[in-house]
Amino acid sequence: MNITVEALRTFTEQVFVGMGCPQADAELAADVLVSADSRGVDSHGVARLAGYVRLLDLKRLNPRPQITVVHETPSTAVVDGNAGLGLVVAPRAMQIAIEKARNVGTGWVAVRNSNHFGIAGYHALLATEHNMIGWTMTHAAPLVAPTFSLEKMLGTNPVAVAIPANEEPTFLADFASTAVAYGKMELLQRKNEPTPEGWAQDADGQATTDPNAVKSGGALLPLGSDRQHGSHKGYALGAVVDILSGVLSGANYGPWVPPFATAGFMTADEGVGVGTGHFVGAMRIDAFRPAQDFKNNMDVWIRRFRNAKAVEGQRVLIPGDPERETEALRRHQGIPLHPTVVKTLEELGARFGVPLRVPL
Amino acid sequence: MNITVEALRTFTEQVFVGMGCPQADAELAADVLVSADSRGVDSHGVARLAGYVRLLDLKRLNPRPQITVVHETPSTAVVDGNAGLGLVVAPRAMQIAIEKARNVGTGWVAVRNSNHFGIAGYHALLATEHNMIGWTMTHAAPLVAPTFSLEKMLGTNPVAVAIPANEEPTFLADFASTAVAYGKMELLQRKNEPTPEGWAQDADGQATTDPNAVKSGGALLPLGSDRQHGSHKGYALGAVVDILSGVLSGANYGPWVPPFATAGFMTADEGVGVGTGHFVGAMRIDAFRPAQDFKNNMDVWIRRFRNAKAVEGQRVLIPGDPERETEALRRHQGIPLHPTVVKTLEELGARFGVPLRVPL
Repeated sequence: MNITVEALRTFTEQVFVGMGCPQADAELAADVLVSADSRGVDSHGVARLAGYVRLLDLKRLNPRPQITVVHETPSTAVVDGNAGLGLVVAPRAMQIAIEKARNVGTGWVAVRNSNHFGIAGYHALLATEHNMIGWTMTHAAPLVAPTFSLEKMLGTNPVAVAIPANEEPTFLADFASTAVAYGKMELLQRKNEPTPEGWAQDADGQATTDPNAVKSGGALLPLGSDRQHGSHKGYALGAVVDILSGVLSGANYGPWVPPFATAGFMTADEGVGVGTGHFVGAMRIDAFRPAQDFKNNMDVWIRRFRNAKAVEGQRVLIPGDPERETEALRRHQGIPLHPTVVKTLEELGARFGVPLRVPL
Repeated sequence: MNITVEALRTFTEQVFVGMGCPQADAELAADVLVSADSRGVDSHGVARLAGYVRLLDLKRLNPRPQITVVHETPSTAVVDGNAGLGLVVAPRAMQIAIEKARNVGTGWVAVRNSNHFGIAGYHALLATEHNMIGWTMTHAAPLVAPTFSLEKMLGTNPVAVAIPANEEPTFLADFASTAVAYGKMELLQRKNEPTPEGWAQDADGQATTDPNAVKSGGALLPLGSDRQHGSHKGYALGAVVDILSGVLSGANYGPWVPPFATAGFMTADEGVGVGTGHFVGAMRIDAFRPAQDFKNNMDVWIRRFRNAKAVEGQRVLIPGDPERETEALRRHQGIPLHPTVVKTLEELGARFGVPLRVPL
């Protein structure tokens, strides 16, 4: 089933209102979530809406949070998300970072007591509207084994960096610190097909092609896959994201990061901090050099890379290209929803009295 | 031949003085270079001393630079290195970042018109002496092909992040954005042994195990090795490092980054900016939360990861562990120098009238 971006956004917004969110928060949360679907990152879009509802049912989500700044300096802040939706807390934190960058050149905000925030790239892009470079990081529940570890100690811990250009579209790096997103494993689970080696290890830490490895004692592998190909680098990157998101903010960290929305409910006592954490930043370009000069140079950078001689039948992409191309397509053709996703959305619709309308 | 750390540092310092560097700069540059040898990063230590001399001979290196701040805000600066040694320019830039962090919470300095700066970790560690988190990035001459590219467009572009703990040693992530350091390829070249797949591609962009691939039209691969294992993520990370180091500072960028010290001399006209660039930053921990609380939590983080259940016969390392362990060893046993390195050092010693003394 295909649905228009607008219809899916309206439906999602109404579910958030049904969950008790204020109207403005519901609009923002729906925009973040549906932007993932628009951009082809289906694993982070409305497929997760039911997860946010489960968080609410588990009383781990506060639909009407008082988001507060608990400490700040001219270029930094720590924000307490009051157990609100990460979809709402993260953009709020980024607005604070942008304001600080306006005043003193850069702004950096560590967030604690939040929840899953959707796609990292959405929040990083907010800064580019102000001629700033945007940074977003978040940790997540442990699925990843550091090099040589049998235990899952880190989440897929993504980093996003958004950099504006002039005539060319915005450069947007947005990537997990793992070899592969867990969503790609799930696709192969449904089809019962093996994965390539280098995506996951089994319960003994050995290479495996079992798509169910992570569910049966195994773990996702850091970017680099194994020691010989630099998995210690992916592990180090994921660790930095975890420390900035968790330790610097006063959230949980490492293996204590609470699960997104599985049945397992983690009480505060079991943790080492408060909820889930993020780290966002904004750097005003003209705090370094004139924004127009920089953006013209970014055009040169992007064109040179895009025109690099490529392997037969391929082209060299700029980070952000694939998602932008999908977005252009789906704006016209609508967003294809998997039948299982349609089913969960219909269930949510029934619960909150919101019909899922307007298939394309 | 083994040499004491002190003897190697003194020799190196005297060579820098012979090159025309002021005494204080020579001491600093020698300390940066020899710290690489001490820490086991032999590819970035005195093995490169002859390269800096070649830069001088090519008139690409100014031994007595006037390092200037060309633009600044309370939390940012752009520094022009005046074609000085990166070994001197980068610590100077980090001191500026530290000063800004002291004043407004964080400091971020983009550097242009510099040269190779040695190991990234050295400069990041400077911040930790002030209860700050240190960041260092640099781009380098193009050796790396982005995903699907036949052309070498990026350097090995490393990132270092240094994070202080309390009783535990400092966390130091310091890694190139490639599958492997070029130094490891060179080791196999000398032995004429094949590399593992996933380190490099040949001139047609195909997988290869030829240790000479990069010299014969091939390229190093980004961290992740191939598209299926996330090479687009390593490419994106290397691109961010290039843009912050090069485009934000007004240095060269991408394929225009000048070579470190090969015979090929690149005039300013051929470039798109000024020299080589770096990007450094310092974040004051208590701009986020009390430094003692943070450092105690870092101890918990480090101990939990170090004690993670490991693959039989292995242990889970904390980023920075291997280099710290090597440093402890070499402080007592001295630094082993490869015969070819000894030969180039003796040649430099002869040129500058500095004897290479005190084998252990």
